[in-house]
Amino acid sequence: MYSERMMCPALEKRIMSAAEAASFISSGMTLGMSGFSTGAPKAIPLEIVKPGNVRDLTVIQGAGLGLLDELALSGAVSRYCAFQWSRNMRSAINAGKVAFSDIHLGQLADKIRGGTFGKIDYAIIECARINEDGGIVPSISLGVSNVLLECADKVLLEINKAVPAEIEGMHDVYKNDLRPLDGVLERKGEPVFRCDLNKIAGIVITDEEEPKLSFRDTNEVYQDIAKQVLSLLDSEIREKRLPQEFTLQAGVGGVANAVLQGLSEGGYKGLNMFTEVLADGALGFIGSGVISEASTTALDLSPKGLKTFFGNIDFYKEHIVLRPLEVSNGVSQITAMGLVAMNTALEADIYGNINSTNAIGMKMLNGIGGSNDFCRSAKLSIFITPSTAKNGAISSIVPMVSHVDSTEHDVDIIATEYGYADLRGKSPKERAAEIIENCAHPYYRQPLRDYYSGAVALCGPCQTPHDLSKALSWHQRFIETGSMKQD
Amino acid sequence: MYSERMMCPALEKRIMSAAEAASFISSGMTLGMSGFSTGAPKAIPLEIVKPGNVRDLTVIQGAGLGLLDELALSGAVSRYCAFQWSRNMRSAINAGKVAFSDIHLGQLADKIRGGTFGKIDYAIIECARINEDGGIVPSISLGVSNVLLECADKVLLEINKAVPAEIEGMHDVYKNDLRPLDGVLERKGEPVFRCDLNKIAGIVITDEEEPKLSFRDTNEVYQDIAKQVLSLLDSEIREKRLPQEFTLQAGVGGVANAVLQGLSEGGYKGLNMFTEVLADGALGFIGSGVISEASTTALDLSPKGLKTFFGNIDFYKEHIVLRPLEVSNGVSQITAMGLVAMNTALEADIYGNINSTNAIGMKMLNGIGGSNDFCRSAKLSIFITPSTAKNGAISSIVPMVSHVDSTEHDVDIIATEYGYADLRGKSPKERAAEIIENCAHPYYRQPLRDYYSGAVALCGPCQTPHDLSKALSWHQRFIETGSMKQD
Repeated sequence: MYSERMMCPALEKRIMSAAEAASFISSGMTLGMSGFSTGAPKAIPLEIVKPGNVRDLTVIQGAGLGLLDELALSGAVSRYCAFQWSRNMRSAINAGKVAFSDIHLGQLADKIRGGTFGKIDYAIIECARINEDGGIVPSISLGVSNVLLECADKVLLEINKAVPAEIEGMHDVYKNDLRPLDGVLERKGEPVFRCDLNKIAGIVITDEEEPKLSFRDTNEVYQDIAKQVLSLLDSEIREKRLPQEFTLQAGVGGVANAVLQGLSEGGYKGLNMFTEVLADGALGFIGSGVISEASTTALDLSPKGLKTFFGNIDFYKEHIVLRPLEVSNGVSQITAMGLVAMNTALEADIYGNINSTNAIGMKMLNGIGGSNDFCRSAKLSIFITPSTAKNGAISSIVPMVSHVDSTEHDVDIIATEYGYADLRGKSPKERAAEIIENCAHPYYRQPLRDYYSGAVALCGPCQTPHDLSKALSWHQRFIETGSMKQD
Repeated sequence: MYSERMMCPALEKRIMSAAEAASFISSGMTLGMSGFSTGAPKAIPLEIVKPGNVRDLTVIQGAGLGLLDELALSGAVSRYCAFQWSRNMRSAINAGKVAFSDIHLGQLADKIRGGTFGKIDYAIIECARINEDGGIVPSISLGVSNVLLECADKVLLEINKAVPAEIEGMHDVYKNDLRPLDGVLERKGEPVFRCDLNKIAGIVITDEEEPKLSFRDTNEVYQDIAKQVLSLLDSEIREKRLPQEFTLQAGVGGVANAVLQGLSEGGYKGLNMFTEVLADGALGFIGSGVISEASTTALDLSPKGLKTFFGNIDFYKEHIVLRPLEVSNGVSQITAMGLVAMNTALEADIYGNINSTNAIGMKMLNGIGGSNDFCRSAKLSIFITPSTAKNGAISSIVPMVSHVDSTEHDVDIIATEYGYADLRGKSPKERAAEIIENCAHPYYRQPLRDYYSGAVALCGPCQTPHDLSKALSWHQRFIETGSMKQD
C-alpha cells in the first residue's frame, strides 16, 4: 500500500501516525508549512494544535486557507505569515491574538533565508510521493515549500494519496537565480524537492481532500469592469504597445474570469499566463486554446476543477508549470515577461494610490499577497474595483486612501464598471480628473470634484492638492454613520 | 581643434553653433536630455528656450539640476520627468505650470521605450568625444542617454571639452538584459554609445563647467544618525546576516558621508557600492581603500571633487563603472547585489510607511528618485531621518504619513539620531512601539503614545489602529499654527 507512494527504502522506518509526528512539536516552535491555499498539510497540524498540546507557535506558510481556521481557533498560534484567506485567522489577527507581518509574497523566500523569522524548527510539507532516490514529488502548490525544506532543522512529510502521483513532472523546483526565463514554460530545475534525508523526522500517509474552494459567480458589475479592461487591451494592441499574444497575470475571481471570457469571445488565442494562482476558469481557457501556456505557484481549484485537472493531468502538464513562489512572483521574471498585471483594489484615491489590505485603514482582510510584486514590475499595471461597495455606502474612489499598499508610482490604470483612468505620464492634477470622471460612481463624482476643487483653493501652489482636515472624512463618516454619503 | 574630439569624418559637416542646433526645435516637441544632475547639455537647451523661440516643450531627463532652473524660468517647458533638484522647476511644478509625473527612476528607460511620453523628437546629449567609428564617449553621467539615443527621431550632441576624453573606458553601455551582474565592476556592454549616424542632426562643441554642486556639511545630528546605522550594521555582521564586506547603496549627503566615515574609522575595508549617485565623499573613501568597487549612473561632484577625479582618472577607472540608469537602478541587479540600501525619509509613520516626496502631503520636493527601486529590492532597507525638522516644529515621526512613497511592506529599518526601529517580521502594533520609543524625538513620544493608545481604544479589533479624525491632525496643526506641537 505505502510502497507505491513511499518508494525510498532509507525512509521506511520514518512512517508514523499524525499524532506521533505531532508529538515532536513543542511550544514556542516556528513551523513552516506547505500550502498556497491548496497543498497544505492536512493531518499533522490538526494533531499539533489539539487542546493542551502546545502554545505560542509561529507559522510560516505561503498562503493559508482552510487549515488556518483550525489553527486560529486553537489559540496555539501567536504569529503568522504570510497571506491568509481565513475568517478565523483574520479575526485573530485583528484582535491582536496573532501577530501578523504583511509582506510581499515575492520576498517571503528571501526573508525566510535571511532570518526574519529566526530558525525554522520544523517544515511540514504535503507531497504526492517520495521516490526511490528520496526525491519528493510536490502536491498541487509549491509556495515556499522548497525554502522551508532547505532551511528547517527537521522535516515532517504528509504523502496525500488523494493527489495522483502522475502529477510528477508538472513542477519546476529550483532556488531563484534571478535570471529571466526565456518563456513561460521554460524549466530550469527538477520536478521534485531535494532535502537531506536525515532531516526527515516523520512521514504520514493521508488521503485527504482539499478544503472546498468556491469562487464568487460573475455578475453584471464584474462583466462591465471586464468590458473596460478589454477595451483598454484592444487599444494597447492597436497602438502597438502590447503584442497580440500578450502575457497576463490575474488574480482569481469574477472579473479575471469575465476578462478571459471576453478575450475568448473576441477571438484571442495563444495567450500566456504568468501568475501566482490558477483557478477553475483558467483550466477551461487552457482547454479551449485561449491560454496556451501558464506558469503559477498554485492551483486553487474547486472540487469540480480538481476532478477535471486530475482526470486530464497529462494534457495540463503540457500547458502548466508549477513554480516556487520566489520565481512566480520574482521581480526579474515578472519584468522580463512584459506582463499585463490585473489586481483588485479595495479602494483607490483620486491620485492613484491603492489600498489592497486594510478596510477603512484599519481592519486587515487577506494581506498584500503578490499584488505589488506584479504591479510594481509589470509592463502594464491595472487595478480593478467596483466603483462602490456595501450597496453604495462606500465609494471605492476616495479623496485619500486610508492605507497604501501600492503607490501612485506603481499604478498605470484604474478600472471600474464606469470606465478606466490612464495614469501613465500624468501629473496628480491630471490624474484626479481622469479618475473622478472615468472611474467614480456617478453619485460620488460631484462630492469628489468638490473635495478636489476645495483642496486646490485651500492649498496654494502644490503638486498634490489636499485638504488634510477632510482627506479622511469620508472614511470617518462611514465609521460614524455607516455610509460615506453626505446626506 | 575639433579633430581631437570629433574624429568621425562622416559627421564633420554636422558641426554647428548652439543657436543653429536649437533652431531645429519647435513648439510642442518632446526633448530627451542627457544628465543625471551632472552631464546635462549646457549650450543648446539655453538657446532653445530663449524668449520668443518655443513653448509647450516636454523634457525628459534622468535627474535635472542647474539647467532646469533656466528651463523652468523660461516658461517654455510644460511637462517634465523625472527627478528634479532645482528650486525653480520645483516652484513651476507646484504652481501647476509644469506637469510632473513622479516615477521610479529604475523604470524610466522602459517607460520611454514603452511610449509613456510619446515620440521623442530630439535627444540632446552631452559627450566627451566622438570616435572615428561614430562611437560616442559619454560624459560624467549616463542616466537614460542610451535610451534617448535609441528612441529619439533625431539627435543633437554637445561635445564638452571640459570633460577629459580619457574618461573613455569608464562606462558600460548596454540595454538592461535583467541578468544579475556577477560583481559590481562586471562589464557587459561597450564603453561608448552607438547611434544611427543619420539621426545626428547637429554637433556643438562646448567647453563648459558643471553647475557648482555643494553638499550640506555634516553636523551632530547626522553623526548621531550615522552612529545608529553603524551599530545596526555591526549587529547584522555579528549575527551573520550580513557579510563583513557588504555592498552599500546610499544617497548623497551628510548622513551617508558620516556612515562611510564611521565605517572607515571602524576599520572596514574593501566595501562595495552599487548606487545611483557618487559624490565627493565616496571619491575619498575609494582613495583610502574603504570602498574598493563602485557602480553608479552619475558622478555628482563639486568643482573640487571634479578636479580630483579628472586629475586621477586612470585610478578611478579601476574602481568605478558608470552604468545606464536602467542597470544602476534595475531591480534584478539590486536584488542580486544583496544590498544595504540607505535612503532619506521626509517623514515616517508609526507603522513604517515612508513619505519621501510631498511636504505636508502636498508640496513636491525633488521626486521619489531611486529610493523605492533600492529599498523595495534591497537585502536590508534602511530609511534615515532626523527626528524633527524646522527646529522641532515638525516631528518626522507622525501618526500617519501625509503621502506614501515606500510602504510598510518595503521598509526594514527606520533610524533617527535617537535610535533605530527594526521592523522586520513585526506586526503594525509591534512596529508602533519600536518606532515611537526608539526613533521619535523625546518631546513627541508622549503625544505619539497618546495617539496610539487613543486609536487602540477607539478602533476595536484591528490590525492597524487609527483614529481617522486625528490621523492627519499633526500636519493640519502645522498648517494652521506653524508647529505640530500641541501647546
